[in-house]
Amino acid sequence: MNNNSRVIIDFEPISRRLYYKKNENFYELLVNSGIRVRSLCGGFGSCGKCKILVQQGYEYLIPPTDSEKNFLSKDEIHGNFRLACQCKIAETQINLIESYPQPQIRVFLPQEILNEDFKILTSGINKGVNLSPNVKKIFIEVSKPSLENPIPDLERISYSLLSKNEFNENQFKPSFEIETLKKIPLILRKDNHHITLTLYGDNNIIDCEAGNKVTNNYGIAFDIGTTTLVGYLINLNDGKIYSVSSALNPQTAYGEDVVSRITYIKNNKEGLLKLNSAVVDALNKIIDETCNKSKILPSQIYEATIVGNSVMHHIFLNIDPTYIGLSPYVPAVKRDLNVRARDINLGINRGGYAYILPLIAGFVGADTIGVILSSEIDSESELTLAIDVGTNGEIVIGNSDVLATGSCAAGSALEGAHMKNGMRAAAGAIDTIKINHSDLSVTYTTINNKKPIGICGSGIIDAIAEMLKSKIITRSGRFSKELIDNERIVKNDKNLEFVLVKKDQTSIKRDITISQNDIRELQMAKAAFYSGTRIILNSLNQGVKEDYKIKQIFLAGAFGNYINKSNAKFIGMIPDISDDRIHQIGNAAGTGAQNCLLNINLRDKARKLLEKIDYIEIAVAEEFQREYAQAMYFPHLNLEHFPSLKEYESILKR
Amino acid sequence: MNNNSRVIIDFEPISRRLYYKKNENFYELLVNSGIRVRSLCGGFGSCGKCKILVQQGYEYLIPPTDSEKNFLSKDEIHGNFRLACQCKIAETQINLIESYPQPQIRVFLPQEILNEDFKILTSGINKGVNLSPNVKKIFIEVSKPSLENPIPDLERISYSLLSKNEFNENQFKPSFEIETLKKIPLILRKDNHHITLTLYGDNNIIDCEAGNKVTNNYGIAFDIGTTTLVGYLINLNDGKIYSVSSALNPQTAYGEDVVSRITYIKNNKEGLLKLNSAVVDALNKIIDETCNKSKILPSQIYEATIVGNSVMHHIFLNIDPTYIGLSPYVPAVKRDLNVRARDINLGINRGGYAYILPLIAGFVGADTIGVILSSEIDSESELTLAIDVGTNGEIVIGNSDVLATGSCAAGSALEGAHMKNGMRAAAGAIDTIKINHSDLSVTYTTINNKKPIGICGSGIIDAIAEMLKSKIITRSGRFSKELIDNERIVKNDKNLEFVLVKKDQTSIKRDITISQNDIRELQMAKAAFYSGTRIILNSLNQGVKEDYKIKQIFLAGAFGNYINKSNAKFIGMIPDISDDRIHQIGNAAGTGAQNCLLNINLRDKARKLLEKIDYIEIAVAEEFQREYAQAMYFPHLNLEHFPSLKEYESILKR
Repeated sequence: MNNNSRVIIDFEPISRRLYYKKNENFYELLVNSGIRVRSLCGGFGSCGKCKILVQQGYEYLIPPTDSEKNFLSKDEIHGNFRLACQCKIAETQINLIESYPQPQIRVFLPQEILNEDFKILTSGINKGVNLSPNVKKIFIEVSKPSLENPIPDLERISYSLLSKNEFNENQFKPSFEIETLKKIPLILRKDNHHITLTLYGDNNIIDCEAGNKVTNNYGIAFDIGTTTLVGYLINLNDGKIYSVSSALNPQTAYGEDVVSRITYIKNNKEGLLKLNSAVVDALNKIIDETCNKSKILPSQIYEATIVGNSVMHHIFLNIDPTYIGLSPYVPAVKRDLNVRARDINLGINRGGYAYILPLIAGFVGADTIGVILSSEIDSESELTLAIDVGTNGEIVIGNSDVLATGSCAAGSALEGAHMKNGMRAAAGAIDTIKINHSDLSVTYTTINNKKPIGICGSGIIDAIAEMLKSKIITRSGRFSKELIDNERIVKNDKNLEFVLVKKDQTSIKRDITISQNDIRELQMAKAAFYSGTRIILNSLNQGVKEDYKIKQIFLAGAFGNYINKSNAKFIGMIPDISDDRIHQIGNAAGTGAQNCLLNINLRDKARKLLEKIDYIEIAVAEEFQREYAQAMYFPHLNLEHFPSLKEYESILKR
Repeated sequence: MNNNSRVIIDFEPISRRLYYKKNENFYELLVNSGIRVRSLCGGFGSCGKCKILVQQGYEYLIPPTDSEKNFLSKDEIHGNFRLACQCKIAETQINLIESYPQPQIRVFLPQEILNEDFKILTSGINKGVNLSPNVKKIFIEVSKPSLENPIPDLERISYSLLSKNEFNENQFKPSFEIETLKKIPLILRKDNHHITLTLYGDNNIIDCEAGNKVTNNYGIAFDIGTTTLVGYLINLNDGKIYSVSSALNPQTAYGEDVVSRITYIKNNKEGLLKLNSAVVDALNKIIDETCNKSKILPSQIYEATIVGNSVMHHIFLNIDPTYIGLSPYVPAVKRDLNVRARDINLGINRGGYAYILPLIAGFVGADTIGVILSSEIDSESELTLAIDVGTNGEIVIGNSDVLATGSCAAGSALEGAHMKNGMRAAAGAIDTIKINHSDLSVTYTTINNKKPIGICGSGIIDAIAEMLKSKIITRSGRFSKELIDNERIVKNDKNLEFVLVKKDQTSIKRDITISQNDIRELQMAKAAFYSGTRIILNSLNQGVKEDYKIKQIFLAGAFGNYINKSNAKFIGMIPDISDDRIHQIGNAAGTGAQNCLLNINLRDKARKLLEKIDYIEIAVAEEFQREYAQAMYFPHLNLEHFPSLKEYESILKR
């Protein structure tokens, strides 16, 4: 009995496409494909832990079982939640689904059920900032009242503050948050009129504690990515990172990229609130986690700084992002914002604040300001290209004279989405690949040295570059006819595929391959970056005497940190400059948020950057179509753009 | 069968002492005493409406009946709630209760069950203020974005604002509340980029609406009294009062004066929160009520201004008032405060603010600042005494040169509390009294011309003054022996009483009398005012060449508005100056709150008053005991203080 079907199920947020076998339940499908899923009972429907959300194709499934009715609430059942171990496709539906050309079923795996630690890049370059935080703690001994001098508590506290040398009486007009005020009478008398005040900015007293608590002064920097969230807990007295936590952005349950999330918000009445709560809850979990690791309390965190792209920025603040997605692509606001943490439900100190870095324009958000602040591209003497490779791609080109930016719809191919065997960078992902040019045998490495499950972004770039060098594919991205009889090139549903790892060596018991479609996805992604870079460069070169040329590249973002630079050049994703001028700068956006927490002067700098930076709407540029089409070739239609690839001329000229 | 008992029950907040008859339920007791109580079933335990709270003496009552178990929640039963129509004193307990000299049972009547409209003074003098409110509405037409000029919403709005002539670009830096920001994308596009912004203060944009909504601009001024609450809804565009609502302060359930409320807070873990919620909920009901009357929405109210004494001020802000009640009597804060309405749960516009007038010191609160602002005593050329007669008494003495204030523990005798037949000013209260000096027959008037139920403050002053003039009592407050055989002078429990109204003419079927104890209560209250005035005056006269003398009196507060000026002088409550120099200025505290809403400059003035005003702690003054003892006499031990009472010399010299 052949129980293989041609039914594909997309699993998010891990970006895996799996082939469904008849009668298999979803738990078995996941586990057999090497995806570790949380379950206490081992898939027998008796623990209720393997809860999944069916986002598309619910109608094809068997109805909820008794076990599901037992473990799931009515709301969950109505909301299309299932238990993976109970959930199957109804046998009568299999033929129907197979008749569709596109995958019909999409399942979201909540973070709780994923056992694998994902490789979320949390570290970044740090060019070093001076410590000058916005939050200071001050210990004072307050005078006591008397019948002769019955001065109210707050006024006595103000006198004690003003008597400290560090404050200038003319400039320092302390104002007390109502939350502080409420505490004062009891706190003041708890430790003999010795108190510690928390000063936010120049004048705002946001907290008071009994006794001397000046050492407990923390901030947290957040990078809100479309796919991943990272929080850095920082001691504001010494500037050190005390702990870091990360998580997948739970908004991925509602759409994998910013455009699909905007669509979700437009089509669902409570959509904005749902997405907003999802991300805020996740950030609050990160707050708790970093605090637990460092043995401090969330109430000892007084400020959060935040970077994120424009859509993440708006949703985080509960502002409708719809008009960012519609021409002429304007956000509601771009200036930087100081918002009281409790107004946006952020679980730090009740009197605390969030500082949200400014947006640049359209889709180019506060994350790009973060990249510029931490990489200091605006101080470089030579023209530098910084690309931040995430679910969205942002491009910055600049030096001490000029600065321009734009965003390109790179899609999430480089994060493994839409690829037949693509996956995020997690244990078992193939991350580097070499192909023997004579016999096409493949050597590879995987993350954590586990049996391969799929290919992550850096592996995909390697695979394509190696397939080019081995003449398996041509410059236009097609399989070359010469090698079509090689045993590693197979046909599947009329599409050619190159077998990287044979099924007996994989965890998923199927070949891991690169398909013709995968090659197209990568071409589109790399063409978006390269053509975007060209268009921004063209705009800088308009009306100048001598053309600016890229002399240095900063690769930011998780993906940018792991790729093989030569191969990225070889496929034409980045301009052709020598490897030692290409720097991997890690999570530069997150570092920018940290720096703003450590030094308030960087907030002034961020505001000034907004005046200096040119925003280029890449997709509406006149030359966009031509540039994009030319960049679809490996490395480019015009080989003069890649002079260093001379040794491969014979291959590339084919 | 004589079923009369000597068991007294105190009913609050109406300040009525009623004699309990054996086997009577509390509903019958109330109704038979002329107090209208809400009930749908007429007292048969079948509607559950006559809910009351037994604050003291619960142990003397019969256990809850089936009807009570049916209509009251478990929490209510545990919290000593009863149904009036089911509740009786257990027969076995009557003798025990009678053996105590003091009343043992105290019952609180929630406002819902009281059918009587109380006479809460809501109007006051208004010397007229210029209209210059802190909240302005601005209509603008915002430019639309384009691909060439993809300027974010907020930035386009800012440009439109700055292009208005009324704003100076150098001074006007509009900042947007996060609540405003959240609304902007949708509001802007709702009516073709025509919007109305609400500007609070110089720069803060607290709301935005689609279209032109400049006419909907309201504020509300609150007077938070110990016993009564009043709210004035004011149109900030024309300065007119649109509607007024008042209510009893529900905190009276936890103690009738500020000292007993502080005690409640000290003794109950959640006490502060309970009292805070009670008053905030009541203010929110007033907001809803005034809005309904004026057919506007609470969201169209952008600012609330608030006056109240120091303890009411602290509880309203959820600040522990304990230390106001303990030597050296310091509040947590005295400066004026701007607090976001939603931070204190006030149900006006979400972006709105509350402005709380400053306190002076100790028990002298923002209500006194309100009195000074509205009476403009600080601009008078002649030395003026202002007394605010409420549950607490505040005294201000000043003119354009000097200004001093203090508070006196007048108790609530003048509001009818602790008097045998005392009651608040409500329908059926005797409010004026004349006694025929030859036959001691009494003529009187009642509020709303109803059959008399009791005596309110102005009636009590009249009664005492008339009893003095008719020689029924002596200057020391004792019944004079000469008239002791008159039929109107009766003995009750060994105490003498003067019968004002015989039982066949009352609603309560008992004599309405003034007892020896009532006279003592009044003596203490009036002595507190007069000695307080003397002590403040003494302090002003220290070290000055020529003594300051009171040349004018302002009587503020509900009670001050209704009393007979001559009689108030006759009993020695206020200094002896001619009637045409005594002005009744109504709810001057509330008017002060209104004025601060209408004109922001008065807030500067309030701050400056704090620097000018001297606070005198009356009770700790060296001469207090002597002054108080002398003032216990009618009108005073030293008759030279009251030269105008010469015609009564023969009576008073006895």
